[in-house]
Amino acid sequence: MTAKRGDRERVAEAIERMPLVDHHVHGMLADPLVEAELLDAMLQADQADRTAVFDSQFGFAVRRWCAPALGLEPFADAAEYLVTRSELGFDEATSRILRASGITTYLIDDGHAPERLLPDERMMRLAGARSYPIVRLETLAETAMAGASSGDEFLERLEAALATRAARAVGYKTIAAYRVGLALDPARPTAAEVAAAADAWFAAGAASAQRPRLADATIIRHLAWWALEQGSVLQVHVGFGDGDLRFDRADPFLLQPFLAATQHTGGRVVLLHCYPFVREAGMLAHLYPHVHLDAGLALGQVGANADVVLRESLDLAPFSKVLFSTDAWGAPERVLVGAAAWRDAATGVLADYVDRHDWLADDAIRVAELMAWRNAEALYGRRFVMP
Amino acid sequence: MTAKRGDRERVAEAIERMPLVDHHVHGMLADPLVEAELLDAMLQADQADRTAVFDSQFGFAVRRWCAPALGLEPFADAAEYLVTRSELGFDEATSRILRASGITTYLIDDGHAPERLLPDERMMRLAGARSYPIVRLETLAETAMAGASSGDEFLERLEAALATRAARAVGYKTIAAYRVGLALDPARPTAAEVAAAADAWFAAGAASAQRPRLADATIIRHLAWWALEQGSVLQVHVGFGDGDLRFDRADPFLLQPFLAATQHTGGRVVLLHCYPFVREAGMLAHLYPHVHLDAGLALGQVGANADVVLRESLDLAPFSKVLFSTDAWGAPERVLVGAAAWRDAATGVLADYVDRHDWLADDAIRVAELMAWRNAEALYGRRFVMP
Amino acid sequence: MTAKRGDRERVAEAIERMPLVDHHVHGMLADPLVEAELLDAMLQADQADRTAVFDSQFGFAVRRWCAPALGLEPFADAAEYLVTRSELGFDEATSRILRASGITTYLIDDGHAPERLLPDERMMRLAGARSYPIVRLETLAETAMAGASSGDEFLERLEAALATRAARAVGYKTIAAYRVGLALDPARPTAAEVAAAADAWFAAGAASAQRPRLADATIIRHLAWWALEQGSVLQVHVGFGDGDLRFDRADPFLLQPFLAATQHTGGRVVLLHCYPFVREAGMLAHLYPHVHLDAGLALGQVGANADVVLRESLDLAPFSKVLFSTDAWGAPERVLVGAAAWRDAATGVLADYVDRHDWLADDAIRVAELMAWRNAEALYGRRFVMP
Repeated sequence: MTAKRGDRERVAEAIERMPLVDHHVHGMLADPLVEAELLDAMLQADQADRTAVFDSQFGFAVRRWCAPALGLEPFADAAEYLVTRSELGFDEATSRILRASGITTYLIDDGHAPERLLPDERMMRLAGARSYPIVRLETLAETAMAGASSGDEFLERLEAALATRAARAVGYKTIAAYRVGLALDPARPTAAEVAAAADAWFAAGAASAQRPRLADATIIRHLAWWALEQGSVLQVHVGFGDGDLRFDRADPFLLQPFLAATQHTGGRVVLLHCYPFVREAGMLAHLYPHVHLDAGLALGQVGANADVVLRESLDLAPFSKVLFSTDAWGAPERVLVGAAAWRDAATGVLADYVDRHDWLADDAIRVAELMAWRNAEALYGRRFVMP
Repeated sequence: MTAKRGDRERVAEAIERMPLVDHHVHGMLADPLVEAELLDAMLQADQADRTAVFDSQFGFAVRRWCAPALGLEPFADAAEYLVTRSELGFDEATSRILRASGITTYLIDDGHAPERLLPDERMMRLAGARSYPIVRLETLAETAMAGASSGDEFLERLEAALATRAARAVGYKTIAAYRVGLALDPARPTAAEVAAAADAWFAAGAASAQRPRLADATIIRHLAWWALEQGSVLQVHVGFGDGDLRFDRADPFLLQPFLAATQHTGGRVVLLHCYPFVREAGMLAHLYPHVHLDAGLALGQVGANADVVLRESLDLAPFSKVLFSTDAWGAPERVLVGAAAWRDAATGVLADYVDRHDWLADDAIRVAELMAWRNAEALYGRRFVMP
Repeated sequence: MTAKRGDRERVAEAIERMPLVDHHVHGMLADPLVEAELLDAMLQADQADRTAVFDSQFGFAVRRWCAPALGLEPFADAAEYLVTRSELGFDEATSRILRASGITTYLIDDGHAPERLLPDERMMRLAGARSYPIVRLETLAETAMAGASSGDEFLERLEAALATRAARAVGYKTIAAYRVGLALDPARPTAAEVAAAADAWFAAGAASAQRPRLADATIIRHLAWWALEQGSVLQVHVGFGDGDLRFDRADPFLLQPFLAATQHTGGRVVLLHCYPFVREAGMLAHLYPHVHLDAGLALGQVGANADVVLRESLDLAPFSKVLFSTDAWGAPERVLVGAAAWRDAATGVLADYVDRHDWLADDAIRVAELMAWRNAEALYGRRFVMP
């Protein structure tokens, strides 16, 4: 029992000190950052009542973990928190919150509202960390369409953009769930089908739109196949998201035919977020050799319940396929809460395996390391963490 | 640790004493109450083997919590329980069981088999509590149709009934899930569409049926929009129910387009029961400002597992949007078990947040109060609990 | 508290010693058994990376429970485990692993790749147990079709085969989920419909195929109705399976109309495996008097998380309707891990009910016995366990 207690503490301490690779995150809102904007960014819901932010698991988690980063007591109240944050100033508050996360590497998807966000370089200076780009395929296609003079020209520009970005990107992201749902036709679209779809999108006025919006399943499938056939990593939004998403179309089981069809391409898939379909995602990671998952976003949002969600991610997926991410956007609090909720949940779950299921502490620590950074290094084929 | 232990006890004691507003319940079976009827009412399933009642989480919960209300030891066996209950007589047994729940206010939906139930006034005398009516929209429409001489007359009678009932009701209930499924067309039906649907329902012989049965999606949508545009509360059956329900049509994700369309009406929605879709309901409550939920029915039915379900209801929903209910029908045991399972689960979950996630005891107690009665007062805009 | 501690130990000891009836299992791979084959059989996924086997809940469970059966320390590493297993030889290793499970009776479905498996008699000698056959309906039909000269002849041979097998089988199994999905038309097919379907299957060349494959919904429904109208037990694959299965078609809610239609046939249904739809299966077992479930397969695969899954199986299903199985195929490790995970989870969950929900230890032990073997005896109408 004493030995066990010592084991639990060893696991907890190892996880506390462990560097984290956040393999899916977005940029932070640029200054000046007004309070209303900050509160909006803390929620997934643009239109929800702002006062509800602090009366939620996420809000309690901010008070628990972010207040101390600002020099306050844990669970300082919301008003005190916001005043202190404001007094510290943008750079100091941002830096303290980001650095408290222990994240040393960020893989950044800048596809959502980049014009409102800090440049990655400045964010990294404040965070004391390094970043690598993830390219959002729909955004790339929309940029290629803007101002194109034909469907053909769009495809030429798209090809050029993919070649340019592919040289620097560590992976790709698709929000097919938002645009067409995850029930993708598994067949690789032919060149003729892609050309016809490009023509149709162009004919619908996309090129002259303020912001072209890609919602064509053929082009999205083309992009997804392209990324996988490159041998690259394709991040796929699954489950919980904002109000543009139909949740019933974001169930990963709908993606099963596509996953079956792409398993021998050489590319790899990461199912992102997944809540409430975490077990379902784990089943797919069990079955298909190229499928991985994380439970990012959910862990921070569910706060004190994160252990339940993390545990589900470890049901059927091999431990080498479960990753850490925060999916934070806009508010540094989401980064810190995501990281702290992961450490808290990983400690709770793995120490419980040690206590109640006799796992060796070394095994528990190794599984934590896999999730924290080793699986990300293996998946993206890069060394992210300095020895 | 001693401080922590004291905190856990403070939370448990506060929850034990907390008044409860049961915002969704039905009437109790009238006397004389024969044993077979009582046992049937304890189950959601009319046709299930009666002897199974006590070999279930619900049955164990009855032995745990209702036996002491009758003066027996906790976990007295089923036969002893039924004999003692019968010896005490209808009024005494009913009164003891209902009063042991600590529920001070009931919002009663009398839409299901009201002819078999106690008048609300008598039930309230036995319970030592107050009640307010919830109007079941489908039942109101069916009553308006009975004996109507045309679709037009039905609509006139319906309008009159809505006006009359609206003056007294604290909210409305729809069982759209049972009748047409939750995949409601989000568009508000036009007057012409409603008139055509009324004509069609009439033409199908509804008015001369023993009991007209409303299963027309247009009329149901019309009623739901009407309630929301009144600025009222619309309770929506979601998830687990009896054998008249197709469970796959009771998934709240199917309701998402309707929720998106109605978010600016001024009305509010409560997703009722929700099991096994509690997390899904919480996602919708997170996203849409007018959406609330409870996990009533499920908490009592799953008994010793209620903490898992309650925890899920606190994943993504703001704490100001999670309500308490029992959804009891017929058997007072369902009222007491629903209330006791809620107290037990709330204590377990919130004390765990205090113990393992460092929540302040005062915060935990406040979140419990929100669920117990404060959210109900805010949602229905009434003062239910005396100071 | 001391009394409580004693109760917990009583529950744990009783469960440790309890005989188990594995009501759904397959045969074990015949010798010589090469390591690659063994590792493949440990996973549900034929095509997954073999090295992932030990980096998973299942792999950790093998190290925890199977290593001691071979004389190693718990959590011996994978390499040591495989070497020791090989040194012990096929018979000794198989026998030790199977006997450590405490399973005394196996109900064997030999429908999957029987040519690669040990004869049941030899497996039973090694296991020190008895077995009874479960007949897989699709396999029976495929055998009847092989070499038939017409649809009519197929039906004659099928009828004869059913009569022969029915004399010995203790139950039937359908993999409708794999072949046509669970959204079965609830109507009993007419003789004319069955004859037409048989003709169509024959006309498609089934009889001359190497292995005819039954994927006709009418014939599958015919077989399922036949089994139920015999008053027999029909096992139905639900949820998690291998890559031939579309997971979204394996949701038990899809089967609800069929269950409603067959509830008065006199036959009984067992929903097998069910993960991640365990709660859904429990809802159906609550509602329909002839529906039972197990969470086999999942318990062993999720290892240290099995308590969560077992708990879900006890949410709404009457305790008299929840069974034990391993669904092991090929690798004896799956038998032992399935049994040990069940004992571990049952102990954890039921002792928690005793500790935290005041259940009587005797009640907890009785519920464990129901799941372990009593429900199987009642369901299959046989005495499996010697007094």
